[in-house]
Amino acid sequence: MAIKVHGSVFSGAVLRVFACLYEKELESEYVPINMGAGEHKKESFLALNPFGQVPGFEDGDLKLFESRAIVQYIAHAYAKKGNQQLTLQDPKKMGPVYVWMEVEAQKFDPATTKLVFELGIKPVLGMKTDDAVVEEYEAKLGPVLDVYEARLSQSKYLGGDCFTLADLNHTPAINYLMGTRIKKLFDARPHVSAWCADIVARPAWAKVLALQKQHSH
Amino acid sequence: MAIKVHGSVFSGAVLRVFACLYEKELESEYVPINMGAGEHKKESFLALNPFGQVPGFEDGDLKLFESRAIVQYIAHAYAKKGNQQLTLQDPKKMGPVYVWMEVEAQKFDPATTKLVFELGIKPVLGMKTDDAVVEEYEAKLGPVLDVYEARLSQSKYLGGDCFTLADLNHTPAINYLMGTRIKKLFDARPHVSAWCADIVARPAWAKVLALQKQHSH
Ligand SMILES: N[C@@H](CCC(=O)N[C@@H](CS)C(=O)NCC(=O)O)C(=O)O
Ligand SMILES: N[C@@H](CCC(=O)N[C@@H](CS)C(=O)NCC(=O)O)C(=O)O
Repeated sequence: MAIKVHGSVFSGAVLRVFACLYEKELESEYVPINMGAGEHKKESFLALNPFGQVPGFEDGDLKLFESRAIVQYIAHAYAKKGNQQLTLQDPKKMGPVYVWMEVEAQKFDPATTKLVFELGIKPVLGMKTDDAVVEEYEAKLGPVLDVYEARLSQSKYLGGDCFTLADLNHTPAINYLMGTRIKKLFDARPHVSAWCADIVARPAWAKVLALQKQHSH
Repeated sequence: MAIKVHGSVFSGAVLRVFACLYEKELESEYVPINMGAGEHKKESFLALNPFGQVPGFEDGDLKLFESRAIVQYIAHAYAKKGNQQLTLQDPKKMGPVYVWMEVEAQKFDPATTKLVFELGIKPVLGMKTDDAVVEEYEAKLGPVLDVYEARLSQSKYLGGDCFTLADLNHTPAINYLMGTRIKKLFDARPHVSAWCADIVARPAWAKVLALQKQHSH
């Protein structure tokens, strides 16, 4: 198969790439990386990503890393496949999509990464959640979600009328957080809450969760 | 004039946008924001960027923020103007450009932002550099630059054979750091050092520095 995704199905960054592949209805091969055994720091994986983080990605001869770069590549390289509105041709319409992709990376992700770890990952690993960290990042996330609430009261999706990469990039963290006590921050904001429900209900995301389940044993 | 950039010429994010506008040979208007007076937190600016950070950007009716989103918009919307290789048509060639744009945002920027502040901005403001912070972030930057050295020994620019947004996005921080003691980290890596010299020597960057000088009084 031409497209290979190397990583772990517990990594949000890996799930982001699969969400995009499924939206585009592309075939791909999942290559598990045993992170517990430090496989992501071994030479064979460093050839895919010199920073030693999952995902690593191959499309034939082309090797890429950084999940947000990979989804942009997929949308561009397979423009005519599957969902063709993940990026938009008209630059005036694409402008806001670029903006909200950056907001995810620059504002949402720094506020949620630690929360996902403390509340979504640690319990699974049998580790104890650090409540002080949760409180600190909850306080950072609130004002970010206020900006989202204002945006989503103007347009159905972050980039405009349709679901794009700007929304897709948020799905893994939102899916994790919806199962934790942090859900209340989202629920308190009606437009954010409706948007969260919408993006995790997409058929492509259901396929991501099925893949995760299949490889969780 | 159609394009307006609201901000301060001391902000690296603002300079990034101007570097792109000059590469594309586009006319624009600089609208100074008095950050000392907190103008970036006032309603009129928050209408441009709800997070209250410079730059804010207008192209006719379209309002954008986040410097990395703005440069992608400019390259896409003005594809046929000025430097036409800041992004690349062929997806296989654009893939690595996406990767290294993300590396800048995810690895380089987190390692350099504090160094730029401690060594580039504080002295100008008459504040004292915190050597412990410098040491901490120097230790983070070193391994990142090792990856850059390996990459730049394979290709002249980060994205491939030609200068692209992946390189351009680095210029403001590199320009600041070249005037500080952190320069030694770059000098110690010959390919990184040559690349730094190359990207700050571009005519478009000289225009950015001229704009900065003109508005520094
Ligand atoms: N910015 C990267 C982040 C990748 C990342 O943080 N991967 C984590 C798993 S979610 C990882 O590999 N962690 C192991 C490590 O950093 O050593 C991306 O979006 O691909
Ligand atoms: N990710 C943003 C960062 C913008 C940013 O950090 N701007 C700084 C000046 S360089 C700012 O406005 N700081 C004031 C503040 O955060 O209150 C971008 O690239 O546009």
